[in-house]
Amino acid sequence: MKLAFNTWVYSSFPVWVPAYPLEEVIRRLAHIGYDGIEIGAAAPHAYPDYLTPTRRTEIRSILDDAGLALASMLPAPGGGAGFNAASANPLERAAAVDQYRKVADLCAEWGGKTLLYVAGWQVFGTSRRDAWKWSVDSLVDVAEHADELGLNVAVEPTSADSNLVDSCDDVMTMMAEVGRANVKAMFDTYHTLYRNEVATDYVYRLKEDLAHIHLADIDRNPPGSGVVDYVSLIESLRDIEFDGYLTMEIGFSRRNVEPDDMARRAYDYMKSIL
Amino acid sequence: MKLAFNTWVYSSFPVWVPAYPLEEVIRRLAHIGYDGIEIGAAAPHAYPDYLTPTRRTEIRSILDDAGLALASMLPAPGGGAGFNAASANPLERAAAVDQYRKVADLCAEWGGKTLLYVAGWQVFGTSRRDAWKWSVDSLVDVAEHADELGLNVAVEPTSADSNLVDSCDDVMTMMAEVGRANVKAMFDTYHTLYRNEVATDYVYRLKEDLAHIHLADIDRNPPGSGVVDYVSLIESLRDIEFDGYLTMEIGFSRRNVEPDDMARRAYDYMKSIL
Amino acid sequence: MKLAFNTWVYSSFPVWVPAYPLEEVIRRLAHIGYDGIEIGAAAPHAYPDYLTPTRRTEIRSILDDAGLALASMLPAPGGGAGFNAASANPLERAAAVDQYRKVADLCAEWGGKTLLYVAGWQVFGTSRRDAWKWSVDSLVDVAEHADELGLNVAVEPTSADSNLVDSCDDVMTMMAEVGRANVKAMFDTYHTLYRNEVATDYVYRLKEDLAHIHLADIDRNPPGSGVVDYVSLIESLRDIEFDGYLTMEIGFSRRNVEPDDMARRAYDYMKSIL
Amino acid sequence: MKLAFNTWVYSSFPVWVPAYPLEEVIRRLAHIGYDGIEIGAAAPHAYPDYLTPTRRTEIRSILDDAGLALASMLPAPGGGAGFNAASANPLERAAAVDQYRKVADLCAEWGGKTLLYVAGWQVFGTSRRDAWKWSVDSLVDVAEHADELGLNVAVEPTSADSNLVDSCDDVMTMMAEVGRANVKAMFDTYHTLYRNEVATDYVYRLKEDLAHIHLADIDRNPPGSGVVDYVSLIESLRDIEFDGYLTMEIGFSRRNVEPDDMARRAYDYMKSIL
Repeated sequence: MKLAFNTWVYSSFPVWVPAYPLEEVIRRLAHIGYDGIEIGAAAPHAYPDYLTPTRRTEIRSILDDAGLALASMLPAPGGGAGFNAASANPLERAAAVDQYRKVADLCAEWGGKTLLYVAGWQVFGTSRRDAWKWSVDSLVDVAEHADELGLNVAVEPTSADSNLVDSCDDVMTMMAEVGRANVKAMFDTYHTLYRNEVATDYVYRLKEDLAHIHLADIDRNPPGSGVVDYVSLIESLRDIEFDGYLTMEIGFSRRNVEPDDMARRAYDYMKSIL
Repeated sequence: MKLAFNTWVYSSFPVWVPAYPLEEVIRRLAHIGYDGIEIGAAAPHAYPDYLTPTRRTEIRSILDDAGLALASMLPAPGGGAGFNAASANPLERAAAVDQYRKVADLCAEWGGKTLLYVAGWQVFGTSRRDAWKWSVDSLVDVAEHADELGLNVAVEPTSADSNLVDSCDDVMTMMAEVGRANVKAMFDTYHTLYRNEVATDYVYRLKEDLAHIHLADIDRNPPGSGVVDYVSLIESLRDIEFDGYLTMEIGFSRRNVEPDDMARRAYDYMKSIL
Repeated sequence: MKLAFNTWVYSSFPVWVPAYPLEEVIRRLAHIGYDGIEIGAAAPHAYPDYLTPTRRTEIRSILDDAGLALASMLPAPGGGAGFNAASANPLERAAAVDQYRKVADLCAEWGGKTLLYVAGWQVFGTSRRDAWKWSVDSLVDVAEHADELGLNVAVEPTSADSNLVDSCDDVMTMMAEVGRANVKAMFDTYHTLYRNEVATDYVYRLKEDLAHIHLADIDRNPPGSGVVDYVSLIESLRDIEFDGYLTMEIGFSRRNVEPDDMARRAYDYMKSIL
Repeated sequence: MKLAFNTWVYSSFPVWVPAYPLEEVIRRLAHIGYDGIEIGAAAPHAYPDYLTPTRRTEIRSILDDAGLALASMLPAPGGGAGFNAASANPLERAAAVDQYRKVADLCAEWGGKTLLYVAGWQVFGTSRRDAWKWSVDSLVDVAEHADELGLNVAVEPTSADSNLVDSCDDVMTMMAEVGRANVKAMFDTYHTLYRNEVATDYVYRLKEDLAHIHLADIDRNPPGSGVVDYVSLIESLRDIEFDGYLTMEIGFSRRNVEPDDMARRAYDYMKSIL
């Protein structure tokens, strides 16, 4: 199992500061010891529209020089643009799909293999049936483009933030409806905690369809500082011979954090139990 | 003095849900008794790229029918797109200015007179001097466009979130440097509280340059539920004969709120002391 | 890196008691293991006007006998006298500069090399521009006198208490405007915490201009008892090969503390991570 | 009974900001409705060394124009200078007495009749007997000078901050030892609360020697917001036909206050029970 770190806490999403240039983040994470990085498509790091071809090449070199693999990428959901793949507004859905495609392109160019997919959410006045259908349609488009680039798409239940794909069954149902080989599943311990679910249930139910994992504890604090049982989780992952990334997605929900501290504490704790 | 309510808590910014269609929000705020609405340019309400000409006309009619004035508009800062007017990346700055222009167009079309301006923030590695200069340049562009539409631009110090225009002096300095008649100032009691500043100091220092006010208490709770002294504030505003909007910008930072409750409690408290 | 302890908690500033004679403080800090002492110019320790030539010589001997180096000195700001180097009142500014000069004299006589400079604060009715200019003028005078004595002046951002030099950029700008080789920078983790800033950002931005550091946690509690990340801080200081003092400035804001306990807990924790 | 307000919360003592010019404070307190003002000798208001003859005349005019009486004056204790009238250091005692004389001069010039006296405090290594004797000597000097100016001196027990004159008996003993007709007593409900004393006991024991009163509640909050029983206090004061000032000494111990709010809430509450 490899350890990766998600970049939100170093970016301007969702809190504006502290924020660091992407090269700075890459070097720091490599220095701490991480195997991989999960790059969120937010300013000032990797919002696709703000990256020139030169900059894209440069980032690839910095990753290679630092010996840090690109574990995965994802768009930033919920900012003004929404990128709600389940929106009742066809212009918003199209913009969401378009953003996923651009992020997939970036991911492939930087050597990644996994694109995360957040299924979106219901706005008051929209039925779950409609929102679900629109999200499935969006996912089909995203998955097709990802396939051409050799990427898997990992669908993430996000119960703490959304109201559409919130459980293990939701993600299994969506995978089945889409029916494409490159559509997989993932889960996040912050969200399983929110629903009082058992994390190892996801592991044993998803098995070979489990492509990615987010680790975070209460209040998006680092593993080891809260209540989640990471020892049982690791044991179950060994049982199913999981070989993906354990990615820390922590610290980003508030301003008063020291990102390096988050990254180091999470790394040290996970290394101590692996 | 008129009372208005900001739409974030009813939108998908920054938390995804609960979210309501804009027509629903307009009707509810008018029903509670508000004089005006401050519309943030976020999905699913008013992200400019998602609004067809038909929809724009429709929203204008709904506002008119409800008897609710458009108090002001503003972009959603900090989501993946950043819209950081002080970014070191010229593509991001250009996108920010472009978004401000689009929001200004919407504002004028819907009968508003005030566009809010958030000056942006410094990313690690950028000096304050450079960030400041870029933000001034962006503001000049925005103000020129706003002027053509007959709008004022109100610059907001945002100390709790940013690190560039954080104080009364910062906004006064920026106004002076830009030197345009339609560039004014505003402040938000949530941010003055964050800096432990005295809200009436802003009133007495800004006087006729004070174009707009945001009200919020600790944790973005409604006026009357926390520690801010609204009585002194109202008295000072009467002293300077302020005739703009007192706009509640509350409740949006977390999922577990009932937006109508926020809107009603804020309205009732402010009416009781006016 | 060397450890030092600031004397406020043992003095009558700002709370009157508990207070101890300076010789007592020197012996206790040496006994705990500190390398250095930061002496604040407050009664009953080192208010310059209350020290006879005999007493000055005596303190120097006590320091030497105890093997405790004088890490730094500073005036007591904000008491009735203000010593506000940015005051609109020329008599107050002159008194502030005069006090800094007297403290510099003491510092040199007792073998110190570093004088701290607090830039002052704006009073209502004074613009930031004017306050800044006055503070720069005061600093030029202080720095010139310090230079003659072979001292560096370390300018400290004090966001929790002031409203003038509050950030890393502020101190960098002031250094640049003054443009004297002996004017350096410092920071205090209590103040960076107040602004929700990242302490290592100061380290990497200031580099060789970083001359001194204050350590304190929430409520001026000792390092290790709160939330500040001292491990990342130490690592960043090693990166830039910092060789100044880490000075605990703690416990002085309230009466109900045991100064030796503050000093010992801070020492033990910092030693454990160094 | 007349209501007055102490200026600390509007000054740079002990917290540096918010701070306002003295003319601003005078006008605001008169506007709220106060009969009198207690001016502390702190920057930027009334530190004697910073006041030119012109400024002194100007302040007198502003007081007269506003119709606000000078209730009383006092030095700022505990800042770097100490002004500890009980100090073991003869230079510090002399400086304290000198400061009291200067403040007495100001008080007389501005039409006041009452000078407050804080007896000082014991430093570790000084016996209570010595500290007491030194404080009595200092008080004799101060009282003599005050007498020439037609002023009373009100000695204040300050248990929450000091360790010398802490109780009703302490102040009665000191009055008796000094034995001068213009040396009177006062008390502060914040300090009686600290010692769990009954405020009306002071009233009935001191009777005609009671020359002044400070009102404050827990954490130096305004009367009416805490636990002190002001109704009984007022009743006892009527019993003894007290005709001095009830002076609010509140809000000054922390930065995050709105001084006008403090002044208005205290005034409104006291008016409601008088």
